[in-house]
Amino acid sequence: MQAKNMRGKQSFVLPGKPVITHWASVAGKKESQGPLGKCFDYTSQDTYFAQKTWEQAEKRMQQLALDILSKKADISKEAFPPVYSGDLLNQCIGSSFSLNKTGIPHLGLYGACSTMAESLLLAGMTVEGGFFPQAIAMTSSHFAGSERQYRFPLGYGGQRTPTAQWTVTGAGAALVSSYGNGPRLESCTVGTVTELGIKDANNMGAAMAPAAYATIRAHFEDLGTSLDDYDKIITGDLGQLGKELLISLGKQDGLDLDEKIADCGTLVYQLDTQDVHAGGSGCGCSAITLCGYFLNQLKTKALKRVLFCGTGALLSPTSTQQGLPIPGTCHAVAMIGEE
Amino acid sequence: MQAKNMRGKQSFVLPGKPVITHWASVAGKKESQGPLGKCFDYTSQDTYFAQKTWEQAEKRMQQLALDILSKKADISKEAFPPVYSGDLLNQCIGSSFSLNKTGIPHLGLYGACSTMAESLLLAGMTVEGGFFPQAIAMTSSHFAGSERQYRFPLGYGGQRTPTAQWTVTGAGAALVSSYGNGPRLESCTVGTVTELGIKDANNMGAAMAPAAYATIRAHFEDLGTSLDDYDKIITGDLGQLGKELLISLGKQDGLDLDEKIADCGTLVYQLDTQDVHAGGSGCGCSAITLCGYFLNQLKTKALKRVLFCGTGALLSPTSTQQGLPIPGTCHAVAMIGEE
Repeated sequence: MQAKNMRGKQSFVLPGKPVITHWASVAGKKESQGPLGKCFDYTSQDTYFAQKTWEQAEKRMQQLALDILSKKADISKEAFPPVYSGDLLNQCIGSSFSLNKTGIPHLGLYGACSTMAESLLLAGMTVEGGFFPQAIAMTSSHFAGSERQYRFPLGYGGQRTPTAQWTVTGAGAALVSSYGNGPRLESCTVGTVTELGIKDANNMGAAMAPAAYATIRAHFEDLGTSLDDYDKIITGDLGQLGKELLISLGKQDGLDLDEKIADCGTLVYQLDTQDVHAGGSGCGCSAITLCGYFLNQLKTKALKRVLFCGTGALLSPTSTQQGLPIPGTCHAVAMIGEE
Repeated sequence: MQAKNMRGKQSFVLPGKPVITHWASVAGKKESQGPLGKCFDYTSQDTYFAQKTWEQAEKRMQQLALDILSKKADISKEAFPPVYSGDLLNQCIGSSFSLNKTGIPHLGLYGACSTMAESLLLAGMTVEGGFFPQAIAMTSSHFAGSERQYRFPLGYGGQRTPTAQWTVTGAGAALVSSYGNGPRLESCTVGTVTELGIKDANNMGAAMAPAAYATIRAHFEDLGTSLDDYDKIITGDLGQLGKELLISLGKQDGLDLDEKIADCGTLVYQLDTQDVHAGGSGCGCSAITLCGYFLNQLKTKALKRVLFCGTGALLSPTSTQQGLPIPGTCHAVAMIGEE
């Protein structure tokens, strides 16, 4: 037993290049009205998704995403792969309730909005290591559930600050497999936790940008790659402000990220007309943008190689109320188009 | 790339048998007064662990556990293994704040009180698959932070029900390695999410017992093992009631668990004198009992083979207030004594 796949300090390669054979995305009303509105497998104009609470709506979105995925991939109930999933709700009840009584093996994650990348990274390990032939990566978020948890109940009608981002209502799921065709996972970088003192729960892009930059740098150093090797560096939900901060962090090091960065938070909404201020955020943001848009771009070879960087703000309502800064993290997964 | 290590539906083996070379435990005042009080590496009579809040005390316990572990194992700051960790606090702030600005790679988990088993399972995969030479599994909980989050602030002086369990104040960390000596990981079973309708946040043992039983059965079936193969079946925090329920579930199937079950929740406190009602609970319960007691038992070969079953109640304050039942989960890790 050797660390044959480790590279550098935080990264590893996946020599078997596990395949993402199928993916599914579920999105809410505002997301359906955005630039990617036509890309999603399922959209609903009902923010409750026919449930009694927003939290249960989030559960329902995960169920829908998993259901669509299992139909696309023809997964039998008897041999359901393990699901790596998490969300932003206290104690991740979106994820655990969605799998309740299904008999599906489940490993719960908490990586805040980095969960789509964290779950893909772990699903890649699982398949590459031969522990299971397939594994599913899934996550979700819901605007209304998230607002009342982290900031104010929507009924208060609180004024949003210019740096605020809009939590995406949506869920994405991807099947990582040891066989089949589709985009492939090449390598992964495990993020560290870092912050530069941002304490404003309405400015999460700035809180996450330093972590995104640290992980992108670590990925390049560990794997001996550079910006030239990637068509796009896809960040999860930095939003307009966080994206600009990330670019300026790069400039200080002579790294010109400007043309390569595609932030899901700035792609999922029409920033100038949808009143979302700095852009989209939440676990669902990178999940539906990856599973609704970028994986199709890789499949059709419109993109050849991307670095998917899930960014997460590891705050809680309690830590915010106690005046603590917002630690950020970022996990990165390098993917290539269908071979 | 084949699923060469998979067994049955939910389980896999670790042919290289990753070694738990070092472990550390940190515990609070009440735990230091219990039957295992002398087993822990570090105990404090200050429930705040010299911090301003209970949440930060939990962060501090994780820092202490990691610090003790890294000294024991002589881990250099420059080559720190990735840490799999999680806790019960909203958004797992015990875990993320403990690693903030350390530069240590971190993958966040949410498995409620099953986190010690979930993190060991993932650390085992990581080492076995050659992704990193070592990985750390860590978790914690804090009585006071947990009570005010899930039930009532302690200042209310609420009456505890007879089925209530006492959340352990403590943290445990274990280093899983591809080399060295110590107890070894043999195989793992990924749990499913299940419940039988329990809605009382003061009766979590009963909520988790069905999941514990489902995982123990799946483990035996997947791996072709039986009770005879294990000296002990160690459950995380079922407490007295949950343990009895688990035993009765076994009896219905002709499985006599009575003599083999050792529940950390009933071992960590003196149930008749420490006023903890049904026993201990929380992520820290199985963490300090494993890292303070059972790993030493395996090291000295007092125990030859155990099945460590981390049990988790996947409730949140929100799901309880919304009247929903408590889904439970359980992940199992089979370990053998030093070879």
